[in-house]
Amino acid sequence: MGILVVGSVALDSIKSPFGSKDDVLGGAATYFSIAASYFTDVSIVAVVGDDFPEEHAGLLRQKGIDLSGLERRPGKTFRWKGEYGPDLNTRTTLDTQLNVFADFSPKLLPPHRTKDYLFLGNIGPDLQRSVFEQMKRPMLVGCDTMNYWIENQRESLLKTLLLIDLLVINDSEARELANEANLIRAARRILSWGPKTLVIKRGEYGACMFGSESIFIVPAFPVEEVLDPTGAGDSFAGGMMGYLAATGLHDDAAIRRAVVFGSVMASFNVMDFGPHSLSNLTYPEIVSRYREFRKICFFEDMLLKTPRL
Amino acid sequence: MGILVVGSVALDSIKSPFGSKDDVLGGAATYFSIAASYFTDVSIVAVVGDDFPEEHAGLLRQKGIDLSGLERRPGKTFRWKGEYGPDLNTRTTLDTQLNVFADFSPKLLPPHRTKDYLFLGNIGPDLQRSVFEQMKRPMLVGCDTMNYWIENQRESLLKTLLLIDLLVINDSEARELANEANLIRAARRILSWGPKTLVIKRGEYGACMFGSESIFIVPAFPVEEVLDPTGAGDSFAGGMMGYLAATGLHDDAAIRRAVVFGSVMASFNVMDFGPHSLSNLTYPEIVSRYREFRKICFFEDMLLKTPRL
Repeated sequence: MGILVVGSVALDSIKSPFGSKDDVLGGAATYFSIAASYFTDVSIVAVVGDDFPEEHAGLLRQKGIDLSGLERRPGKTFRWKGEYGPDLNTRTTLDTQLNVFADFSPKLLPPHRTKDYLFLGNIGPDLQRSVFEQMKRPMLVGCDTMNYWIENQRESLLKTLLLIDLLVINDSEARELANEANLIRAARRILSWGPKTLVIKRGEYGACMFGSESIFIVPAFPVEEVLDPTGAGDSFAGGMMGYLAATGLHDDAAIRRAVVFGSVMASFNVMDFGPHSLSNLTYPEIVSRYREFRKICFFEDMLLKTPRL
Repeated sequence: MGILVVGSVALDSIKSPFGSKDDVLGGAATYFSIAASYFTDVSIVAVVGDDFPEEHAGLLRQKGIDLSGLERRPGKTFRWKGEYGPDLNTRTTLDTQLNVFADFSPKLLPPHRTKDYLFLGNIGPDLQRSVFEQMKRPMLVGCDTMNYWIENQRESLLKTLLLIDLLVINDSEARELANEANLIRAARRILSWGPKTLVIKRGEYGACMFGSESIFIVPAFPVEEVLDPTGAGDSFAGGMMGYLAATGLHDDAAIRRAVVFGSVMASFNVMDFGPHSLSNLTYPEIVSRYREFRKICFFEDMLLKTPRL
């Protein structure tokens, strides 16, 4: 089993109404793999510059994450700087420096080519396919993308969609990709383009899962102290793929549980800056939040017939 | 049993990306009572002008709704004109004419004073209390309000909150009332002001219920063809109160089921202009959507332990 994730490892500078932190360990592959590391073995394929702090690599190693595919190149690490509005729902990117990430062109190591689970993080769709083509025959391929690729590399993205099993994107991306405002119709259209399962992330409103014959909708786990939403979507994808890889199950019921584990990991992640809270979890905390989640979503069948119904 | 609802009966002119209709039967008390009429007896206390079409009154009567408290006064009926944006999430009020509703000051008829369930629709909080004080001793009192009263009659509104059991408002109202961006903290603050239960409506994202020791969150039932969201929140409140009144149950599990019935009624209401789809339902349709709702929200306990968890 085990997951190979390809994507960004970055240094983030984050400002939220609750404080600000500079050069925090960031990047989609970072959040994804820390979340997934609680469930299964994870190998990162990414690139950093020679300024990447050893302490950050140490944190990832401490979570058992395989960094043999983390290339170090001369130059600076991908840097992102962003600021959140008062309700944390709006985010402004203040600065993006791709640096060594601009020429990222992953060559997989032999042990990585035989991984059973592959997650293609938010990189160019051409690059996503080049990674896919280096793999032997993965059991399940997940994929993320973003508005930039939808707008600028649509044809290439559609080719990538033909190869994958699971697309994990947010609601505005789904609407833009399908060119359809209604989320159900957007989902149906996207499913017709290849993915067997589409998971749409809706931030503080939770997530929807669409399969060929199934719809599953779950709210976000309610968190009272949200300090920094950075990486929530990647933590979600990591928890989800982690659970699937750990169990080897891909049926509808398992995917639903995986979506809930994804939501659980995202809910932990937002409780502190960067991946701080995500990387300091215990197994009982994860299990207990999953169970609390069930209580929050639970309602009975209409056991009591009303006089008229 | 049976519910007394006090609120507006109006003539609405609605423009949505899917068409426009003029002088449709509208108003909070209208949507509320049609939704509730599938569950229990409903009596409306409201006022209309002498221009109110007999056909609209006929529709309400046909749903078994008691109109003995619907006052007809010389003058024009409350009129509202609004337009929805492309994704139906933004609404612009183009015109509001209170007309006879401006001097609405309900005097309850003797049979109405002994109703067990009371819903105080979105009218001024002074007026809400004057209605409450005319009641004998209702078993459960629900209440709605809006930003206008929160901003302009806050002290009076807080007095009303002391009297009620169930407050049903939307998320922006909850945040403004509590002066708190985080919904969980906002809910806790509002509950400390009197209501035993707070239900927060989140439009296409569903609803949350907060009790003293319980949180329940449910998504909206996914509807593919949303034509007109007008009255969705009132249909929600009507379905919810209707179920509670019909069963006489007020425990946590019953309130959860009631929230789901509220969501079911709201989801039917948005499928056509005005109360058209809401008023043409069959009981099997309501029951079957409730059950479909359960399937959409269902996930198992973590039956399968992952290697690490």
